[in-house]
Amino acid sequence: MTLRTTLDFLLHDWLDTLSLTSRERFTDHNRETFDAVLDTCERIAREKYAPFNRLIDVQEPHFDGDKVVLPQATQDAHDAFVASGMLSAAQDYALGGMQLPYTVELAANAFFSCASVGISAALLTGGNANLLMAHGTELQKEVFAKNEFAGRWAGTMCLSEPQAGSSLSDITTRAVPDTGSSTPWEQDPLGARYRLKGNKMWISAGDHELTENIVHLVLAKIPDADGKLVPGTKGISLFIVPKKLVDTQGQLTGVRNDVALAGLNHKLGWRGTTNCLLNFGEGKFSVDAQAGGPWGGGAGAIGYLVGQPGKGLQCMFHMMNEARIGVGMAATMLGMAGYYAALDYAQNRPQGRPITGNGKDPAQPQTRIIEHADVKRMLLAQKAYCEGALALELYCARLVDEQHTGNPAEVADARLLLEVLLPIAKSWPSEWCLEANSLAIQVHGGYGYTRDFPVEQYWRDNRLNMIHEGTHGIQAMDLLGRKVLMDEGKGLKLLSHRIMATVHRASGIPALALHAKALGRTLQDVGEATQQAWSTGVPTDALANAVPYMQAFGHTVLAWIWLDVAACALDNDPAQSEVSTQGHVGCARYFFHYELPKTKAWLAVVQSRDMTCATFPSEAF
Amino acid sequence: MTLRTTLDFLLHDWLDTLSLTSRERFTDHNRETFDAVLDTCERIAREKYAPFNRLIDVQEPHFDGDKVVLPQATQDAHDAFVASGMLSAAQDYALGGMQLPYTVELAANAFFSCASVGISAALLTGGNANLLMAHGTELQKEVFAKNEFAGRWAGTMCLSEPQAGSSLSDITTRAVPDTGSSTPWEQDPLGARYRLKGNKMWISAGDHELTENIVHLVLAKIPDADGKLVPGTKGISLFIVPKKLVDTQGQLTGVRNDVALAGLNHKLGWRGTTNCLLNFGEGKFSVDAQAGGPWGGGAGAIGYLVGQPGKGLQCMFHMMNEARIGVGMAATMLGMAGYYAALDYAQNRPQGRPITGNGKDPAQPQTRIIEHADVKRMLLAQKAYCEGALALELYCARLVDEQHTGNPAEVADARLLLEVLLPIAKSWPSEWCLEANSLAIQVHGGYGYTRDFPVEQYWRDNRLNMIHEGTHGIQAMDLLGRKVLMDEGKGLKLLSHRIMATVHRASGIPALALHAKALGRTLQDVGEATQQAWSTGVPTDALANAVPYMQAFGHTVLAWIWLDVAACALDNDPAQSEVSTQGHVGCARYFFHYELPKTKAWLAVVQSRDMTCATFPSEAF
Repeated sequence: MTLRTTLDFLLHDWLDTLSLTSRERFTDHNRETFDAVLDTCERIAREKYAPFNRLIDVQEPHFDGDKVVLPQATQDAHDAFVASGMLSAAQDYALGGMQLPYTVELAANAFFSCASVGISAALLTGGNANLLMAHGTELQKEVFAKNEFAGRWAGTMCLSEPQAGSSLSDITTRAVPDTGSSTPWEQDPLGARYRLKGNKMWISAGDHELTENIVHLVLAKIPDADGKLVPGTKGISLFIVPKKLVDTQGQLTGVRNDVALAGLNHKLGWRGTTNCLLNFGEGKFSVDAQAGGPWGGGAGAIGYLVGQPGKGLQCMFHMMNEARIGVGMAATMLGMAGYYAALDYAQNRPQGRPITGNGKDPAQPQTRIIEHADVKRMLLAQKAYCEGALALELYCARLVDEQHTGNPAEVADARLLLEVLLPIAKSWPSEWCLEANSLAIQVHGGYGYTRDFPVEQYWRDNRLNMIHEGTHGIQAMDLLGRKVLMDEGKGLKLLSHRIMATVHRASGIPALALHAKALGRTLQDVGEATQQAWSTGVPTDALANAVPYMQAFGHTVLAWIWLDVAACALDNDPAQSEVSTQGHVGCARYFFHYELPKTKAWLAVVQSRDMTCATFPSEAF
Repeated sequence: MTLRTTLDFLLHDWLDTLSLTSRERFTDHNRETFDAVLDTCERIAREKYAPFNRLIDVQEPHFDGDKVVLPQATQDAHDAFVASGMLSAAQDYALGGMQLPYTVELAANAFFSCASVGISAALLTGGNANLLMAHGTELQKEVFAKNEFAGRWAGTMCLSEPQAGSSLSDITTRAVPDTGSSTPWEQDPLGARYRLKGNKMWISAGDHELTENIVHLVLAKIPDADGKLVPGTKGISLFIVPKKLVDTQGQLTGVRNDVALAGLNHKLGWRGTTNCLLNFGEGKFSVDAQAGGPWGGGAGAIGYLVGQPGKGLQCMFHMMNEARIGVGMAATMLGMAGYYAALDYAQNRPQGRPITGNGKDPAQPQTRIIEHADVKRMLLAQKAYCEGALALELYCARLVDEQHTGNPAEVADARLLLEVLLPIAKSWPSEWCLEANSLAIQVHGGYGYTRDFPVEQYWRDNRLNMIHEGTHGIQAMDLLGRKVLMDEGKGLKLLSHRIMATVHRASGIPALALHAKALGRTLQDVGEATQQAWSTGVPTDALANAVPYMQAFGHTVLAWIWLDVAACALDNDPAQSEVSTQGHVGCARYFFHYELPKTKAWLAVVQSRDMTCATFPSEAF
């Protein structure tokens, strides 16, 4: 099956995405408009992305002392992406968008990630602009968000600092009012104006020349009356810090803001996108020394407050949800890319012979390796991991559309479900589609270990996804420490209802009845483990095994997804006469036979609140 | 614990390696001589290997048209290794060796792999020479093996071809008698003389200038009377093919043999060692066109037969056993290197705060990340994987010593146990110490994804080990398809006896009694799964799940190793007053609580002879 047939099945047969067109926002859409978007993205990805995926790995970005140098292919890919209109596809017509459902947008963008995840520097631009649409002033939307949606400017998220990665409460970037200018700082039309000083680490697409300007969204702390930074996350505010200063018309003023590239990180993979250490307000581009600006009074990078002071992290969370689906999708598509490569290799590489009752007959011609059971096992695992993950991401995207356009009850349900599912949508593909990439290497044998084949790069690229946008450990704490508890477990209950609905439906389908039973049992195990984990009420007891809990939870969710997908496929084709149905049912069977039983081992330590790791003496390592 | 303290514990407290000194071969040895060897290797590794591990990754070998260029550091490391005498450490005094037990040799060499696995090109030289000691003529030993042990020449294994990797029966390299010379081909003092033509792929250290000469051991087929190659492995013979031709005194003759570098493979990792495509007998260095040699009659590379025609693969197996322990050890030490790096980082990186009953107090100073339960979990997993794997490799090495120096009953037992354990010794570390390397990256967070820290390289280097020297799939077929069946399951029975002996011993130790019970049960499960897998007698039924079988088998073996190690530690220190005892007992506990339960899921598909993957239609992928 091609990516397109898989997407079409999931979007239309499974998720009934067309039903969204009955909602007012999407009323102009139909199957043809959806198809046209997918066609366009598929074509651009094939022409402008895929051919250059190795190139951008080899020609790593470098800084020539003045600017960041990227291969021409990166600029071409970026320009083609911008020209496609995908950056603003989901936005209002009034904003130049096409009011496309997020589900379709995500599906269409999958082609880009599959073709070359690293070449695109625009993935955060949309999220950045969306945040401004939610929390910015009218002028901030007009000046910043609109130019980002148009692809004229790019956007970043500046959260981490060298000393503060997972622990954002420890950031030390300071923001003080920009007094002493002719325009009073509180009344700057672009937002209350501050001066920022600090260092930001791990900034994706933090510097480049792909766009005219870069809009940094920066977390910083406003000192209290004593000049001290408030400890914890409560003191964090959010600022727009443009690389180049602009006026209220969105025109460049010619003044460079004091945001300087301090270093490019040299990474294991995902090399096409710059990842930067940025210095804010260290005086490299002193705003005050440059003529012509209305800014003045003290050094620092100019930043405009977004939302309320001290509420920066809440604003940022708006962006994080979609960023987490984005990471999950990137991990998924890297897995898919590896799977397609491995499948192609297995279909064409002759090696060895089938085992017969009498061993192997060396006089027979060699067989294609796809005929070997163990190669099939590795391919089926990849297919089950990656297509399952893809289904999960699209399901989450569908919930985002519900949240935006559903009736109040649907909105509430979607919000709850997303809370519980997002840690899985982010973490599960980053773990298991990475494993898929490893299997893709293994299918290739020695060739897979060389840089003549693409699979080693996919594996390197994918290793990032368990780290950025909240590590595996952070996702697990979020899931077991917050999400399954919040609103008295309402989210978990709702998810259980959805899962049980699938279980009941599948119980009536002979090919799936045993799977349904297994899923029902596992769901009960997860529920019990959740209870047991928290039965002492002591967070250290519960959270000591948060990651095994998340692994079990994730496998349960994926089993549900596969059961639901297979039930849908069998509804349409009960005789399994189509190979696609055989594929879906086979993946479900693989997942229930080979994967779901793993949950027992993970849940055992959660249930017993196993303290083996937590109490292991540090000096005994 | 340092690598040295871990090795000392395993060698002396656990394996009682000193008891070998009561054997005639090792009678001159004692703790001081063993320590001196370890000291020397540790020092050389620290001075000549570790500082250059990143350098050899960045300065990849290249061919300048005439010769292969490697960094000077590689030559220095090689020279220091040769000077240490480790190449011939296990050999007879008469051969310039020190009659060191293999167990101690392996332990000492661990320092090199830990410091820089890729810098050493000498690892196959010893195995190559050992093979010649077992199967070569006296003169072949004298001329080739002895010069290899002395480090004057290096050695390779040339098995695979571009079209024949795992399937050696399909090699097409031809060897025909070298008639027409003044010395009749059958009577060449260096061995029956042939001319070889063919291409050999994946040749580690296949070309370089580190040594004066390179001794290739090449598998090739001698055509039958009709000029046809015999299908299958039965037609395979083994040849010595020196890069430069030599006389019976071991002096270079000045004639270059027709072995040409056709290409260097550009790999994901392990870049310090060349990996080559070699052309034999394609005329680049025509022997006949060069003056002075006594060779003549037809083109091709000169090769000298080793052992009997048609028995080449059996000869090669001699080398493969130790090569598989070597691969397992390399994987283990890469895992260890990552573990040490992650431990160091975790001990020094402040980030986040401990969870208290009231959440986290941001006013408190940050804690070192080693205090976080999930970081401890990741470190403990690495420790349990890598130290467990190290113990297994040393246990196997101890069996090799038994095989060479024990009484007839010990020899027979050691041989049987090695047959069953070697697929695990090769495959288990290559899978789980790779996982350890991934966890080492994860402990580092974003920093681990950069090339400023060593862990990403370890992970790349280690990915090779599941592929070379027999892939994971090949090891699994070997285990379930041959090893557990041979001699009517005698090897498996013997291993079970050993495991049960540990179970009985540990049952009497309170801290281990529950683990002992769990291991006894799992061993029974493995036995039943083995029976069930073969209950239909149909190889395709049994072998469809050979890899999950091997995974379960491997985890069972490692659980046994940990139980035995912990029992030994508790015998010496029942009160667990030493941190090293706490470490061993904690690792055992981790392994039994977090790892051993995974076997259930793997065995389930074996036991039911699950055909989900094997019968999945190829066209449904």
